[in-house]
Amino acid sequence: MPTLVLIRHGQSAWNLENRFTGWWDVDVTEKGAGEARAAGQLMKAKGLDFDQCFTSLQTRAIKTLNLALEEMGRLWLPVEKDWRLNERHYGGLTGLDKAETAARHGDEQVHVWRRSFDIPPPPMEADSPFAMTQDRRYAGISIPATESLKDTIARVLPYWDARIVPELKSGKRVLISAHGNSLRALVKHLSGISDAEIASLEIPTGQPIVYELDGDLKALDRYYLSER
Amino acid sequence: MPTLVLIRHGQSAWNLENRFTGWWDVDVTEKGAGEARAAGQLMKAKGLDFDQCFTSLQTRAIKTLNLALEEMGRLWLPVEKDWRLNERHYGGLTGLDKAETAARHGDEQVHVWRRSFDIPPPPMEADSPFAMTQDRRYAGISIPATESLKDTIARVLPYWDARIVPELKSGKRVLISAHGNSLRALVKHLSGISDAEIASLEIPTGQPIVYELDGDLKALDRYYLSER
Repeated sequence: MPTLVLIRHGQSAWNLENRFTGWWDVDVTEKGAGEARAAGQLMKAKGLDFDQCFTSLQTRAIKTLNLALEEMGRLWLPVEKDWRLNERHYGGLTGLDKAETAARHGDEQVHVWRRSFDIPPPPMEADSPFAMTQDRRYAGISIPATESLKDTIARVLPYWDARIVPELKSGKRVLISAHGNSLRALVKHLSGISDAEIASLEIPTGQPIVYELDGDLKALDRYYLSER
Repeated sequence: MPTLVLIRHGQSAWNLENRFTGWWDVDVTEKGAGEARAAGQLMKAKGLDFDQCFTSLQTRAIKTLNLALEEMGRLWLPVEKDWRLNERHYGGLTGLDKAETAARHGDEQVHVWRRSFDIPPPPMEADSPFAMTQDRRYAGISIPATESLKDTIARVLPYWDARIVPELKSGKRVLISAHGNSLRALVKHLSGISDAEIASLEIPTGQPIVYELDGDLKALDRYYLSER
């Protein structure tokens, strides 16, 4: 039976400061690093093991993976990093304080941007200090100016199909360290959650989410490892 | 012009204890982690950058790479890990204190095992507590029972040719984090050092060694980054 575990990066500096982060490359806090190590210790204690890891191109997800793997004695596992597992691009909201943004645009508007399925935030301006267009890691990639959750799903799922599904189908046990919205994309797909419900499904930081899958990768069970 | 940088892992617990390590998976010390971070800071300060990284399957080399990349803001770079970059397998000497071994077998014998080109130490016994035969990371690999430096070179160079040369020839800048003897294999090859001399060439821990190569990967220059 293929095993799949999803983990959202540990607390980041901007999780803590309550700012919209998206593609901006914010590091984990000390607390976040501790969450990552604890996740690795928990997976080891529960006897979970892996053959292949996937993560985004963002430091907070990569470090979370590395810290967890170190605790498991599994730093030697192969890791594939890809931008399609990045966080949802928050467009013009990137870098803004969530409370300030609500004060300026109204709670309702911010709620729409944060929790609607297909309405993206305003696009990032080309001269934004948070633009990633000069960042070499995204060379050759058409960097989005903003993304709805639907847009995020539209680039996560082709990657899932092309790179992750074949590993699972060949019997590999897979660990994915990623972000709130790229993981929502996978949970929506695997658990058949509706467009209306998926945006309000919370993915807590540093909590391994276990999927038990059948041979066709149909989800038989999904649970937080800490609760078993 | 292709750039190649070699770095030997930072000080390990058994470097400190003066024990033969080989394939045993010893972690870096706090000092070793500091060497790795300092190497990353130095590479960043000197304007070095990379496109592709390679390392062994051993924690001390992987952590050294991760710590250096973190300092450079380059955790997102692709990393390929392969057993053929592992340290020389020290056979039956693995785990032994170097001074005790010299007291038992004589300085001259130990010098031969450590510094001859083609005389391997005695093989590791199958029931050695340091045997890696049950370690999943080496599944499908014919684990050596012992290796001379010549044996180590014989598995490093095919990997170099197959995996690293194509990256360099396509213009990628390559960083390799590995071990005293797997790096000796590369330095011998690139700098044309004789069989007699290579074993006594010291590769210091945590010191980036820069190769400037021409288009045919002929070495134009080799230097410690800290000296430029």
